[in-house]
Amino acid sequence: MIKAGIVGGTGYTGVELLRILTLHPEVEVAAVTSRADAGTRVDKVYPSLRGYCDVVFTRPEIENLRDCDVVFFATPNGIAMTMAEALLALGIKVIDLSADFRLQDSAEWEHWYGVEHACPELIGEAVYALPEVNRAAIRAARLIACPGCYPTAVQLGFLPLLEHGLVDVGNLIADCKSGVSGAGRKAELSSLMSEAGESFKAYGVAGHRHLPEIRQGLRRATTEGVGLTFVPHLTPMIRGIHATLYARLTKSVDLQSLYETRYQDEKFVDVLPAGSHADTRNVRGSNRCQIAVHQPQGGDVVVILSVIDNLVKGASGQAVQAMNLTMGLDEFIGLELVPLYP
Amino acid sequence: MIKAGIVGGTGYTGVELLRILTLHPEVEVAAVTSRADAGTRVDKVYPSLRGYCDVVFTRPEIENLRDCDVVFFATPNGIAMTMAEALLALGIKVIDLSADFRLQDSAEWEHWYGVEHACPELIGEAVYALPEVNRAAIRAARLIACPGCYPTAVQLGFLPLLEHGLVDVGNLIADCKSGVSGAGRKAELSSLMSEAGESFKAYGVAGHRHLPEIRQGLRRATTEGVGLTFVPHLTPMIRGIHATLYARLTKSVDLQSLYETRYQDEKFVDVLPAGSHADTRNVRGSNRCQIAVHQPQGGDVVVILSVIDNLVKGASGQAVQAMNLTMGLDEFIGLELVPLYP
Amino acid sequence: MIKAGIVGGTGYTGVELLRILTLHPEVEVAAVTSRADAGTRVDKVYPSLRGYCDVVFTRPEIENLRDCDVVFFATPNGIAMTMAEALLALGIKVIDLSADFRLQDSAEWEHWYGVEHACPELIGEAVYALPEVNRAAIRAARLIACPGCYPTAVQLGFLPLLEHGLVDVGNLIADCKSGVSGAGRKAELSSLMSEAGESFKAYGVAGHRHLPEIRQGLRRATTEGVGLTFVPHLTPMIRGIHATLYARLTKSVDLQSLYETRYQDEKFVDVLPAGSHADTRNVRGSNRCQIAVHQPQGGDVVVILSVIDNLVKGASGQAVQAMNLTMGLDEFIGLELVPLYP
Amino acid sequence: MIKAGIVGGTGYTGVELLRILTLHPEVEVAAVTSRADAGTRVDKVYPSLRGYCDVVFTRPEIENLRDCDVVFFATPNGIAMTMAEALLALGIKVIDLSADFRLQDSAEWEHWYGVEHACPELIGEAVYALPEVNRAAIRAARLIACPGCYPTAVQLGFLPLLEHGLVDVGNLIADCKSGVSGAGRKAELSSLMSEAGESFKAYGVAGHRHLPEIRQGLRRATTEGVGLTFVPHLTPMIRGIHATLYARLTKSVDLQSLYETRYQDEKFVDVLPAGSHADTRNVRGSNRCQIAVHQPQGGDVVVILSVIDNLVKGASGQAVQAMNLTMGLDEFIGLELVPLYP
Repeated sequence: MIKAGIVGGTGYTGVELLRILTLHPEVEVAAVTSRADAGTRVDKVYPSLRGYCDVVFTRPEIENLRDCDVVFFATPNGIAMTMAEALLALGIKVIDLSADFRLQDSAEWEHWYGVEHACPELIGEAVYALPEVNRAAIRAARLIACPGCYPTAVQLGFLPLLEHGLVDVGNLIADCKSGVSGAGRKAELSSLMSEAGESFKAYGVAGHRHLPEIRQGLRRATTEGVGLTFVPHLTPMIRGIHATLYARLTKSVDLQSLYETRYQDEKFVDVLPAGSHADTRNVRGSNRCQIAVHQPQGGDVVVILSVIDNLVKGASGQAVQAMNLTMGLDEFIGLELVPLYP
Repeated sequence: MIKAGIVGGTGYTGVELLRILTLHPEVEVAAVTSRADAGTRVDKVYPSLRGYCDVVFTRPEIENLRDCDVVFFATPNGIAMTMAEALLALGIKVIDLSADFRLQDSAEWEHWYGVEHACPELIGEAVYALPEVNRAAIRAARLIACPGCYPTAVQLGFLPLLEHGLVDVGNLIADCKSGVSGAGRKAELSSLMSEAGESFKAYGVAGHRHLPEIRQGLRRATTEGVGLTFVPHLTPMIRGIHATLYARLTKSVDLQSLYETRYQDEKFVDVLPAGSHADTRNVRGSNRCQIAVHQPQGGDVVVILSVIDNLVKGASGQAVQAMNLTMGLDEFIGLELVPLYP
Repeated sequence: MIKAGIVGGTGYTGVELLRILTLHPEVEVAAVTSRADAGTRVDKVYPSLRGYCDVVFTRPEIENLRDCDVVFFATPNGIAMTMAEALLALGIKVIDLSADFRLQDSAEWEHWYGVEHACPELIGEAVYALPEVNRAAIRAARLIACPGCYPTAVQLGFLPLLEHGLVDVGNLIADCKSGVSGAGRKAELSSLMSEAGESFKAYGVAGHRHLPEIRQGLRRATTEGVGLTFVPHLTPMIRGIHATLYARLTKSVDLQSLYETRYQDEKFVDVLPAGSHADTRNVRGSNRCQIAVHQPQGGDVVVILSVIDNLVKGASGQAVQAMNLTMGLDEFIGLELVPLYP
Repeated sequence: MIKAGIVGGTGYTGVELLRILTLHPEVEVAAVTSRADAGTRVDKVYPSLRGYCDVVFTRPEIENLRDCDVVFFATPNGIAMTMAEALLALGIKVIDLSADFRLQDSAEWEHWYGVEHACPELIGEAVYALPEVNRAAIRAARLIACPGCYPTAVQLGFLPLLEHGLVDVGNLIADCKSGVSGAGRKAELSSLMSEAGESFKAYGVAGHRHLPEIRQGLRRATTEGVGLTFVPHLTPMIRGIHATLYARLTKSVDLQSLYETRYQDEKFVDVLPAGSHADTRNVRGSNRCQIAVHQPQGGDVVVILSVIDNLVKGASGQAVQAMNLTMGLDEFIGLELVPLYP
């Protein structure tokens, strides 16, 4: 059994990791840390885990993670970069769900995250874990940077177009909508049900931290200059991201078969039949991305609909997928999660 | 007192007309028709109106509307065009909330609505009632076509840019999100809370009936060829539309002051301070459109956020605004509706 | 014009007072205080009020309220009792929406609220403002204690039974459900949409502060000993309270006509036709309580369904109703609020 | 592998059976019927099942079920009673999720369901499948009647009190709240999100079909006459039932340990620690019932909070639990479902 540790087990990505790992046949959750809840049983904070998890929260210290084979960081940004080196030195693999190691350019990272990077020397080694793009690198990685939720939905939706040079990459638009769990388990006014419920709004239009991450991912698939407008919105539901992507075609091809071919071997990317609309409820609780391809009125604008569960394929599920790869397991084990509908 | 009649009083736009008109100081609701509920008191079907409306539903026949000064059609498409002529002949003004008289090109109307138009001879006379664009014509009109909900939010958002020739009108994108009340009070599986709740999806990407209406409205503001991609989405809330509009700037101007100037005399269009995000909850229940203007990272893409309550400024409120104009009343009377927050 | 002040204008009852008072024909909002937002325009914090309120938040000091005729406290418990005396000394009427003056027994107040009462000498003078019970006293009051949200729904539902001695008052049960706005505008984990949405739970079963308040109100209507079990629940919606009340009949009467007679002159209490179910959406945004009376299978258990909007009849609307009374205005002025449906 | 058939696979209990059975290691879904969708792939109607279910809907005829070992009826009431006999004759076990075989008294069944029972001779053989009460009988059954959703939550909550004769069984109150999925996948106005969302209401107060079922279950646990008041409510969420149960204690005991002892061997009934509140989100998607025991202010009223997911422990999950028992499998296999939180 693989011994897994979770740093920051009280947030939504942390408890989602626990939901998945407690049933993972090859994994034993050996440690879950929480500065605030150290000493408390995990299932006291999360009654949904009663009967599935008898672990007690410990403090987030290397000492408490020493016996792990792999450690997940389900923490706010800025924590993983201070602990990764010590864990790697102990031969422990590190899978970071935060943004610390996502950007390869530390200067850009510091510009967007507003602090100095505590561990720039490891940035180069970190592998950006979007398996549909760089599976081989993930298998060989010690330090894994899990993609953000928006970047996962947007890249999986745009990549086939860029990989085949079919669109004007200087004019890409990603209009994205996220459920409120994306804001995390933080006591903030804007996340109150009275504020976020029964209402819809955009946020971070001036510039969101996922913009440089998406741009970096798209650049890897094209030689042209990427111009991307990314507008995130908050939609009154708990789980789910719906990315509506717009691009102008420069060549005429059968987009439906292009997408089906691109993802035919990808179990977690499901290209819907022509004419379909993707619905976040159909991926709720699962590690799947569903994609629908449209070319309205046969014009030269392509519209891609890409949906994921922000906490699963957008975070914890994809992190376990990366763990399976880097630990030499079947990529899909523990991730047979049928969506919860309705 | 103006005697108003409502044809189709059992739908959401009908009951919203009643919510507004029952408190309108210059209007008396003289008749409300419903084929299904004829003979039943309105407040028996809508207990929310108890104490405010003692009218009894009658059958949708000219005879029952004879005493009205103005008649609203809050009906499905296809009804108003069969009754408008007879009402006008009686000197009764007609305000249609459905789509029957919105498109000036009857061939295009028949293409999108799939039936022959029953009254093409009146199309030319019908006035498209977006007061912020053609107030004078509305004042003089006998037959008024109220804009659709999406077209209201999209046109108010795009028009200043087109009126000043600031953007590439061949590449406009309108990514719109609507609450479920936009689907009307119809027993359909897709509108069940178990289906529409906690989920987000696009629909009608191949082509939605509001596309030609928006295009027609935008064409009036420009001499260039309009190219518009319109993607509507369903968001899990009851009221509200959020339009996120994208265009490429061809000139550099102070967009914030451009919008503030364009709407400075428009009481129902509120341009938010620079840097704001528009939130549908802040217009819930009111006849107001709130607009926020953004130019992400100072690039050449302009992003306009335009929000309305689909049942008020997007339907019944705007219809009453048109009535005020055509009946020679103060445009704002009866529409002093402070948004319901939270 | 009556000059009104609001202490604590940033909470939900505060902004709801503003929604109502900005359209009140006899009232001018002269001051709104907020320690945190002093110096900021109210409509900057609440864009829903743009165009309706140009007041700037001031600090909560007597000096800033000196010109008011009446001051509302929309504050957490513990504030009004420290400022009421000084305001009364200035001849300013005080209407407290918090719990400071609701309980006539200061010892019980201190037991349930856990602090010493700062102004016990005024408790005796304070009038509990449930107009349907003590209208005359409210008219004559200087210091008004507005009922809590649950107590309003429960008392209006139970009182007719107790006033006529029809039930076993030693065995009353009030199973109440509230929308999340009842928790106020406070950044708390339990009020996050991800926590409170799509879920239902009871809270405070061991003892809720509204229990002694309800008990005190019921005791005034009976000579027997009141035994009440009160269980509040949180339901995933923003506004509304639904009280389901159970009592055992000791006499046989026509309950429907009893309730209709009791409330026939009460404009804000609406007894629904026999066989109806009360639905919170039908009072949303209005100052009305709707009540349905049931006697399942003709047995000896009476079930009363009583619904209100917790922020209107359960708080700010009822406070304005009390203000109208104590300032000698028409009780209903400014409260003609048609429910927002859907 | 056990071959399972599902009659009525297009409703919510049907698709939930598919969610569970597609991952059940001992079961193969051999047939799924739907009169309306015969000939269509199941995953075309339910994209959430893409990749998990390649079955095609067939017509609901015995012929199409001949190869099954067990057949589930996830149909409206009235279907199972017309097909059960033929299936049993073929040696096929029948598990009915509808109400056809729940009541042992056919006269009472006909009174509440308003039609003549098509197969009264099988009523006596049918086993009411609440495993926590009659596990042995279920193991031996050919024809299984699955409990309703409300009856499951209410019986599991009340039974320990009745089994030990601790309360006045003549005065039981069950105030129950259900998510909207309980109304099924039927196009009805009252289930529209615009109607059921953001609102709370009681329904069926005069008499609900689950009343006689609950009463029958409670009578089995006591010799005294059962007097039950049952009031169901609709709460604006999709999944979950919260039963708030009230009874008057006639003896004084340690209720917490009584409940813990009663259910200590029941994996699907989880008695929460003293002082807890049960929250439907903590059982969402799982087959678990969580129960909290309260005795407010140490009085003689006991308040039991009992929560389930209406589609799992309240329907499809419990049906699979019964199947496991009657097919001689481990009772828990295929039901290791960690709740989806948040």
